[in-house]
Amino acid sequence: MPEGKRPTEFEIIARYLAPLAADEPGALALLDDAAFFNPSSANALVMTMDTLVAGIHFRAADNAADIAHKALAVNISDLAAKGAEPLVYLLSLALPGRPDPDWLEAFASGLRSAQEAFGCRLAGGDTVATTGPLTLTVTAIGEAGESGMIRRSTAMIGDCIYVTGSIGDAALGLALLQGRYDADSLKLDPADEVSLHHRYWRPEPRLAAIPVLRTYASAAMDISDGLVGDLTKLCEASGVGARCSVLAVPFAAAVQQALAADPSLLTALLTGGDDYEILATVPEDRSQTFEQQCADRGLRVTSIGNVVDAGDGITFDGPDGRPLLFDAASFDHFGS
Amino acid sequence: MPEGKRPTEFEIIARYLAPLAADEPGALALLDDAAFFNPSSANALVMTMDTLVAGIHFRAADNAADIAHKALAVNISDLAAKGAEPLVYLLSLALPGRPDPDWLEAFASGLRSAQEAFGCRLAGGDTVATTGPLTLTVTAIGEAGESGMIRRSTAMIGDCIYVTGSIGDAALGLALLQGRYDADSLKLDPADEVSLHHRYWRPEPRLAAIPVLRTYASAAMDISDGLVGDLTKLCEASGVGARCSVLAVPFAAAVQQALAADPSLLTALLTGGDDYEILATVPEDRSQTFEQQCADRGLRVTSIGNVVDAGDGITFDGPDGRPLLFDAASFDHFGS
Repeated sequence: MPEGKRPTEFEIIARYLAPLAADEPGALALLDDAAFFNPSSANALVMTMDTLVAGIHFRAADNAADIAHKALAVNISDLAAKGAEPLVYLLSLALPGRPDPDWLEAFASGLRSAQEAFGCRLAGGDTVATTGPLTLTVTAIGEAGESGMIRRSTAMIGDCIYVTGSIGDAALGLALLQGRYDADSLKLDPADEVSLHHRYWRPEPRLAAIPVLRTYASAAMDISDGLVGDLTKLCEASGVGARCSVLAVPFAAAVQQALAADPSLLTALLTGGDDYEILATVPEDRSQTFEQQCADRGLRVTSIGNVVDAGDGITFDGPDGRPLLFDAASFDHFGS
Repeated sequence: MPEGKRPTEFEIIARYLAPLAADEPGALALLDDAAFFNPSSANALVMTMDTLVAGIHFRAADNAADIAHKALAVNISDLAAKGAEPLVYLLSLALPGRPDPDWLEAFASGLRSAQEAFGCRLAGGDTVATTGPLTLTVTAIGEAGESGMIRRSTAMIGDCIYVTGSIGDAALGLALLQGRYDADSLKLDPADEVSLHHRYWRPEPRLAAIPVLRTYASAAMDISDGLVGDLTKLCEASGVGARCSVLAVPFAAAVQQALAADPSLLTALLTGGDDYEILATVPEDRSQTFEQQCADRGLRVTSIGNVVDAGDGITFDGPDGRPLLFDAASFDHFGS
């Protein structure tokens, strides 16, 4: 391909995407109409599909490698929360015009490092042009454990409610990137700010949680649309309520610092999106073993409350002990 | 939902999409983050993913039911060509703003009749907003026969080359819709014109071909980007050439009439897209039985030529016996 010439659909597939499928026999080097996959066990396959649109789910100016990472990561995060080990994925790339080779190079390298980190391989997909923004759709397929996919509808009253990692980092990172908050006034040093940006750009699916969730979780889902909204979804699906304490919610050191500088951030942190942590419920009598198993795997988990009767609703006790009130618990993609 | 109020993401899923998943246990009523699927045999699963963008793959003004039909049909067509029985599909819907309830109603009804005709069910997906055109991505999953997925890379010299149905109807239908050709000057009556439009709007995956292809086809693919271009892809993947006769290519009566009125249409018919017929190669000594089996199933197949040595290239002998020349054999989505 001569310098400066922008690649065709065929060249994009052959040069940038096919190498990502090289080790997946059923991908047939992306040279066929479809991919095949031979199930290696009778365990359930778990399928998830997420679409990311530039300007909505990521910023068009974001680094191409980060965009690629995120498109795969948000799907693999769903698999992890369902107790499913990632196997293969399909990628649809709707490109606004012929892309720049440098952009494609970065995109493919981000996808490669992501798929290597997540233990899955490209099996197929589609590449089309669009008159709209860059749009990526990934379908990820994984394998559940012997007892099947972990659902969000099976939490039981009395269960402990856990979250992995820390909450609100990505929402704060995005707010800083968008200039809605200022690092100085939140007393954040440049390294903190970069680490928060990074949490927005590069969500890390909690793969270490998979075997532990399979054994201990009564219900689980990933936190993508904000902790409060996603906990509400899990409770509604399970027909239960939840009583949580804001003081128990795990915040990263930088986020704690920002919160100390501006306590009004709290709601945005609890309802903001892009955490890609896992929300799980665990029967109380198994919670200690669950915590120990997570610790053994280097996975941070924090109990933030308990499942209660549906009639008691979903409450987050605030720092002063009084329940917090939320206006917009969850992110509606069509919200005004 | 009050009259005139446009539905939220949650309402779109609950009201219009969840009913399409009602009979698929692993879809969990579209209330979880992922779907599960229990393979019923050790046969290979076949996965395909196609994206359709308004203004590129369909016209934004097309009927919502037709758009839904097409999004699913083009994917199921890939499965059929691979000898895979459709099982489930995932749908990503990127909507330019909150859609009109009437549009959604028509879309869901088109999807329902398509999935019922194709024998598959909605298992999951995603619904997002976009600032660009309506964009639909479907991932369809099917089950191959015992001998695995039929590939495009396994045609052998001497094989007969077959196509199902008729070629060029949809390309001509689109040209008429776009006003690039005029029905009167092509001597087409209104009923013919409508039938050609319909072939563009409502491709019919050749599901009847699945068991016959599994038994007889040495290679197959669906014809989506034009007969000449797709035959070229099959031959390149198989390391062979092809010698075909234009006189053997099956054209519908309306297309034959248009061709008689304007013989220069021929190239557009052979290289136009959207046929969604199947191109298959069959060993010569099995071709008679293959034809008989297709006839028994009410499936029209026509032999258009034979697989030859790669060195002999890919030729279509024209009506005068001389090889035709094609400028742009295949549709490049990024073509000028």
